[in-house]
Amino acid sequence: MTGVTESAWITPRMAAMNDLPPSLARCLADLLGDGWLTDADALRRYGEDNSRRHALPAAVALPRTVEDVQMIVRACAQHGVPVVARGAGTSSTGAVIPYAGGVMIGFERMTRILQIAPEDRYAVVEAGVINGDLQQALQAHGLFWPPDPASADVSTIGGNLACNAGGPMAVKYGASRDNVLALTAVTGKGDVIHCGSLTTKDATGYDLTHLLVGSEGTLAIIVEATLRLLPRPPHRASLRALYRDVASAAAAVARIMQQPVAPSMLEFMDHACIRLAREVGGADLPDAGALLMIEVDGEAETLPHALEALNRAADGAGVIAIDEAPDEDSREKLWAARKSLSPALRTIAKGKINEDVVVPVSRIPALVAGVEAMASEFDLTIVAFGHAGNGNLHVNLLFDPDNADESARARAALPRLFALTLSLGGTLSGEHGIGVAKRDFMADAFDAATLDTMRAIKHALDPHGILNPGKVLPP
Amino acid sequence: MTGVTESAWITPRMAAMNDLPPSLARCLADLLGDGWLTDADALRRYGEDNSRRHALPAAVALPRTVEDVQMIVRACAQHGVPVVARGAGTSSTGAVIPYAGGVMIGFERMTRILQIAPEDRYAVVEAGVINGDLQQALQAHGLFWPPDPASADVSTIGGNLACNAGGPMAVKYGASRDNVLALTAVTGKGDVIHCGSLTTKDATGYDLTHLLVGSEGTLAIIVEATLRLLPRPPHRASLRALYRDVASAAAAVARIMQQPVAPSMLEFMDHACIRLAREVGGADLPDAGALLMIEVDGEAETLPHALEALNRAADGAGVIAIDEAPDEDSREKLWAARKSLSPALRTIAKGKINEDVVVPVSRIPALVAGVEAMASEFDLTIVAFGHAGNGNLHVNLLFDPDNADESARARAALPRLFALTLSLGGTLSGEHGIGVAKRDFMADAFDAATLDTMRAIKHALDPHGILNPGKVLPP
Repeated sequence: MTGVTESAWITPRMAAMNDLPPSLARCLADLLGDGWLTDADALRRYGEDNSRRHALPAAVALPRTVEDVQMIVRACAQHGVPVVARGAGTSSTGAVIPYAGGVMIGFERMTRILQIAPEDRYAVVEAGVINGDLQQALQAHGLFWPPDPASADVSTIGGNLACNAGGPMAVKYGASRDNVLALTAVTGKGDVIHCGSLTTKDATGYDLTHLLVGSEGTLAIIVEATLRLLPRPPHRASLRALYRDVASAAAAVARIMQQPVAPSMLEFMDHACIRLAREVGGADLPDAGALLMIEVDGEAETLPHALEALNRAADGAGVIAIDEAPDEDSREKLWAARKSLSPALRTIAKGKINEDVVVPVSRIPALVAGVEAMASEFDLTIVAFGHAGNGNLHVNLLFDPDNADESARARAALPRLFALTLSLGGTLSGEHGIGVAKRDFMADAFDAATLDTMRAIKHALDPHGILNPGKVLPP
Repeated sequence: MTGVTESAWITPRMAAMNDLPPSLARCLADLLGDGWLTDADALRRYGEDNSRRHALPAAVALPRTVEDVQMIVRACAQHGVPVVARGAGTSSTGAVIPYAGGVMIGFERMTRILQIAPEDRYAVVEAGVINGDLQQALQAHGLFWPPDPASADVSTIGGNLACNAGGPMAVKYGASRDNVLALTAVTGKGDVIHCGSLTTKDATGYDLTHLLVGSEGTLAIIVEATLRLLPRPPHRASLRALYRDVASAAAAVARIMQQPVAPSMLEFMDHACIRLAREVGGADLPDAGALLMIEVDGEAETLPHALEALNRAADGAGVIAIDEAPDEDSREKLWAARKSLSPALRTIAKGKINEDVVVPVSRIPALVAGVEAMASEFDLTIVAFGHAGNGNLHVNLLFDPDNADESARARAALPRLFALTLSLGGTLSGEHGIGVAKRDFMADAFDAATLDTMRAIKHALDPHGILNPGKVLPP
């Protein structure tokens, strides 16, 4: 195995293809010119992602067109050479690490916004367009694309779609899968397929579009996407609610989600997070058992009532205080507490396993209680925060990578976290995807017949098994 | 071909299996007892649907459990016998006509609502639950399931999911595919698969759930579904807007969809429909080039502003009048015009081809203008109404089935309607599905590589080709 780090304890067992057949290399070098990279620096850069895993590809291809991508995949298919597509490499699951070597496709030369149709509320983009760049371009039209992952300033639309990225606003507007109308993609056979349509309602044939979203480049490589856009709400308002304990906060989440005013964000922090945000992140927060950050968007005229409805739903047993941000400055300050969390985590622990498990909203207290029990059993610091409206919590297992014993305890706790999540009717991932990190837990999440059906679909779209091998499905 | 009517001019060419292998028949009769029907009356009843097509199955099976369905499919797979699953038979595309004979599965013994989880906003139902019965059960919890097809009082959840049924409220809340979390289904191999999760956010493995929705029982038979529920908005209000011409109305639709207040319905009627509703349906409507029925839902406090925002957006060039329904009675009266349409159509023509094409909203004027040109070229009455917010129009080609020449002209016009729709960037079906009626037009909607990929998925899930053969994909 090439260059797998200490922290990458779950890695595929496969021989890496670090040398390409000479005729393939020649063919692709001719096709791509200066978009064909084989220097050590490029191989290193394209061989890592945000999971701190890495492995070297044999070469990096930078296509400019759909046809380029098709030619690359066709040529690789002929030689049985792996192809891994990569956006900005912000995956935290090792989804784009080329453990099997082969050709890495980078999309930084396919960054055109091909069309913005404000009257029909869609945009057509190449896979390499940065999420934030698209949002900027849409602003002039009063529109936005709902997925807002923390990585939005650097991550690509292609990458967002590949792992079904979400973010805080998914609670109202859905994640990537819910906001795509059509895709152009290249299958493992090298066929260019066009699925979906330009319309927001579609009962025409098999839904390949939603199938490809979240398939992490293992079924087909997404090269262009037609995205569903929404009108940008002109105003927003925020509440901060403090609770005595997690159960009270979770009950409030359920109450909020049961009434008709949809919050545009509904974020949760447990007791450990609140302490961290205050003591390490310097946030202006009192002590509490749990905290909710509640945001609502809409028009100026309806906002006060919506805020009142959310305030009413947030109120109840165990509430300590509910504060409203009176203006945009206070709102920013309110959210600073949430934003201070990630840097604070980095300060107190060099190593973290950041999961994104999901449970039905009513099971959040059981999840957090279970996590607290695990923290004490495994003698680890574990903190939980995230997108409570969807039951999607980022459970962070903190450890010192230089402390072998603590690292081992963190690794041992992980399967327990997944088992707990599944026992609560939840699922492994809400927005990060599976990659290699969670691949072997797929057998716990799905029964054999369902996994076999997924494998049959993989074989149907990628009969040579060259697309991002070793990811998503357990061997 | 068995019993294909005059109007079913697009029918599969295949030999029907009207006699089952005796060992299979014995096995299934033993399994199902009085849920195994072979009498002529049952075969006839289960051999027709709302498209006025029919063909006889060899037998009808009425399973009571998931295991029953699995046993039926496994037994049929062993003998290569076709299996067609059927809800209430409200399909208008011939999607459940057993042209290849074999076993018809009816779901009227699987009608249990297995769970309603108000705090987590989901319901688990067997496939045979009637949409309207579920809505009734949800009312007590202040929740609803968004899909509201015209057939809701009789059609089943399984059938709604199989064809990705929509309805007027899809403009705000999405169609069936957008409102399902998880499925239990039986593949063509007889495997029971469990896809999706109980959570509203899910990036765990391949999205089989959305793939099965709209696949019309050709990939797997849906036996249980976990549905996403929403809080029932406590209030609603309606506007009726009249326009000089279709272009003005369509421009208003685009304006309405571009501002942040989402209408809960946005229905369109063309000039011919308005005349029909008035002269035949007795609706209290002045003459106009086009009409929009606009509805908004929400809380009493926000409704006036929302209505004002929609009124503002509806207003503009070409508007004749915008009227608000001051109370629920007036609201009902306003919608009576829309409801009078279908009966009125039946009065003036015995035969109708009711399509549900979809175009991007900005292309509605081009679609309606094209339809008007077709009406004059083919000397037919063609009327268009429907779900304008999604660009989903019911284009009705009216004809007298006893008039051979007029029937032939209607048949000849149909391919032109689809060609027009596709040329405008639209798609064949928004909520009815493909069935056999539109199957042969799939080759116009998708290129060969995309259709081949759909076929590869069909083969992966149904390797023996026994599930609802001859539907969705052209031969």
